[in-house]
Amino acid sequence: MSMLKIGVAGLGTVGMGLLKLAFGQGPLASVVQVVGVSARTLGRVRDVDITHLTWFDDPVELAKSPNIDVFVELIGGADGSAKDAVEAALMAGKHVVTANKALLAAHGAHLATLAAKHGSEIRYEAAVAGGIPVIKALREGLAANYITSVSGVLNGTCNFILTEMDESGRSFAEVLAEAQRLGYAEADPSLDVSGADAGHKLSILSAIAFGGPPDFSSLRLEGIEAIEPIDLESAKFLGRRVKLLAKAARVGSFIVQSVRPTLLGQDHPIARVNGALNAVVIDADPVGRLSLVGAGAGAGPTASAVAGDLIDLSHQDTRPVFSGPGQANSRFLPNQQGSAISKFYVRLRVADRAGTIAKITDTLAKHLVSIESFLQKPPEDAARVPIVLTTQPMAEGDLFKAMAELSRLEIMVEPPILMPLED
Amino acid sequence: MSMLKIGVAGLGTVGMGLLKLAFGQGPLASVVQVVGVSARTLGRVRDVDITHLTWFDDPVELAKSPNIDVFVELIGGADGSAKDAVEAALMAGKHVVTANKALLAAHGAHLATLAAKHGSEIRYEAAVAGGIPVIKALREGLAANYITSVSGVLNGTCNFILTEMDESGRSFAEVLAEAQRLGYAEADPSLDVSGADAGHKLSILSAIAFGGPPDFSSLRLEGIEAIEPIDLESAKFLGRRVKLLAKAARVGSFIVQSVRPTLLGQDHPIARVNGALNAVVIDADPVGRLSLVGAGAGAGPTASAVAGDLIDLSHQDTRPVFSGPGQANSRFLPNQQGSAISKFYVRLRVADRAGTIAKITDTLAKHLVSIESFLQKPPEDAARVPIVLTTQPMAEGDLFKAMAELSRLEIMVEPPILMPLED
Repeated sequence: MSMLKIGVAGLGTVGMGLLKLAFGQGPLASVVQVVGVSARTLGRVRDVDITHLTWFDDPVELAKSPNIDVFVELIGGADGSAKDAVEAALMAGKHVVTANKALLAAHGAHLATLAAKHGSEIRYEAAVAGGIPVIKALREGLAANYITSVSGVLNGTCNFILTEMDESGRSFAEVLAEAQRLGYAEADPSLDVSGADAGHKLSILSAIAFGGPPDFSSLRLEGIEAIEPIDLESAKFLGRRVKLLAKAARVGSFIVQSVRPTLLGQDHPIARVNGALNAVVIDADPVGRLSLVGAGAGAGPTASAVAGDLIDLSHQDTRPVFSGPGQANSRFLPNQQGSAISKFYVRLRVADRAGTIAKITDTLAKHLVSIESFLQKPPEDAARVPIVLTTQPMAEGDLFKAMAELSRLEIMVEPPILMPLED
Repeated sequence: MSMLKIGVAGLGTVGMGLLKLAFGQGPLASVVQVVGVSARTLGRVRDVDITHLTWFDDPVELAKSPNIDVFVELIGGADGSAKDAVEAALMAGKHVVTANKALLAAHGAHLATLAAKHGSEIRYEAAVAGGIPVIKALREGLAANYITSVSGVLNGTCNFILTEMDESGRSFAEVLAEAQRLGYAEADPSLDVSGADAGHKLSILSAIAFGGPPDFSSLRLEGIEAIEPIDLESAKFLGRRVKLLAKAARVGSFIVQSVRPTLLGQDHPIARVNGALNAVVIDADPVGRLSLVGAGAGAGPTASAVAGDLIDLSHQDTRPVFSGPGQANSRFLPNQQGSAISKFYVRLRVADRAGTIAKITDTLAKHLVSIESFLQKPPEDAARVPIVLTTQPMAEGDLFKAMAELSRLEIMVEPPILMPLED
């Protein structure tokens, strides 16, 4: 075991959490020596004394510094100084530890090539599901397995919002505003609520599980903006919960990747993972189903993951960046709306008028949509009657056709909302 | 990465599962070469062709063979040929991969010393919680953390029995007989139902989490033999579930280890882990709470764990046997009945007679037992009235005194049953 000299770029809560571990009494302190730091502003009051460390205004200079062995990138963002600094570090033959999912999702292939060329390593346990050591579990613990699917709740902000909406009956907008006040959501929440952040993380898991590099562009993405309290309530009535499920699975010779709100059966291991928690479920042969639940973000959990990577590097256990149970480069199925086969949940709002139900059921029957459950709720006001129904397993494309025809009926007050079911 | 030559001793379902992986198309096949095997009988029909492998009647000879790099011990048992062979392998400078929790719980310290002396490694992911990579998560993923507690459901047989009793209302004896017919329980089930097997596993987790070696003798052990359907039913009425909880936690400067039936709150991550599944919950700083759930036994999951260890060894990532987040040898608190502080569940059966309840509540009040909930159930027959109650948090020793006095009352039909509650 050798003492690693590290440079840390980005001193937000995660960076400060890492420095606390590095200057503390625990195992990290005995394997790393922090020699340089970089952050946007020197002036912030910080609760760890960093006056004895060499300060770099430019993270790229820190990354290239001959005094460091490992560059820890906690800047964030797919491009800009995070990317410049990571590239500089790799080209200088340094190892990189990063929590940056956007960077890996966008430039994983390029960075892996660069790392291989210069004999460097990139470690990124903190980039997916924060404190849950899922990268390690997949790459090493399940190294002998054939992975059939990886799914999870990978964005704590969305899970917090859905949980709060579910428990309080409040709208998406109200709960989002609260989450922003509490610091659980960014001022610009679009990266989270659109599903993109979960998608970045899924593309990394998927690369390891099935054979990399990450292919974010193939991913089907749906956010939680359209979810209403009525959907959560109806799900509960159906014995289910709505989660923003990120899922990558083998379908034939392809890997299908999607992030979308999904009604999970109540016995699904993720169904009761509430609040800001993250969860990952891996289905694999021969291990079966494995579920991991823990804190997906925050200073402590993320610093724990970064520190674990640094301790691994100090053991000189090196592996190719996206090596894992996946054996060859996988073919990721490009995002194709309509290709899923599943039971579906449908929410309609229709005019409160005689013959409305018959028109709907006739249209569905015409398109061979087989109904599993059908619930007409009391009118919300004079003009709007909510209807929620679930279908038998069917091709989503066929359901789209039925919905298109329904949407042309004048009784429809708003476009239908669709979600798949999963057990 | 080097090609490892391995010898496999023990060709039960796990051994055969491992050979299937070693001779298959997956990643294990590309890193190991099986050169010798040993098992009790040559004659069994096996679904993997082993005719090209060198057969050893004596596993000790296989362990010492100059042709192998790694000895895989799947014989089982704390002593006898498993121990002899593992010792022989270590003394010959071979690495050992084992699924044998009884061996490590009983002789972990001795074997770790032997391994260190001869520059060998012992890997044992399969020994605890089968396919769940919890050893790796603790030792490596959480390497930078300060662990405060490790708990779990570590015996699938007990969990299967409790789940079946809960769902069907049948007695322990009936469900045990069914589990034996189904192959979920051994002909002699005592190692499982007494809690000893879970205790072996807990002592290993505990060694890694807090600083080894395993100290099985300090462990408090209670099995599930005394649990009745009424307890499961009452737990449900209280919004809880009964699980055989194995738990090691810091209490002051000590580590307290116990295996005992426990009423878990319904939001506890283990409360809904049913059937033969295993689960582990780790509480640590700074990562927070981490839960892992998966198959704890069986050919596939166990072979997955053994194979993961072999692939790790092929990467030449070596670590001291019980190294992990724990920094120093920990002080395990010797088993001391009565030292726990908790809410408790108490089940009594009393005579159906006027004044009985008053006598009980008077006795409890005298011993300052503060009651949280009290439920008198309808008489089961002329002579027996079940009462279940829960207490406020209290020292178990004080409850023991109250129970001792209760037991002297002639109205008591049988000795009281106590279980701690946990949220």
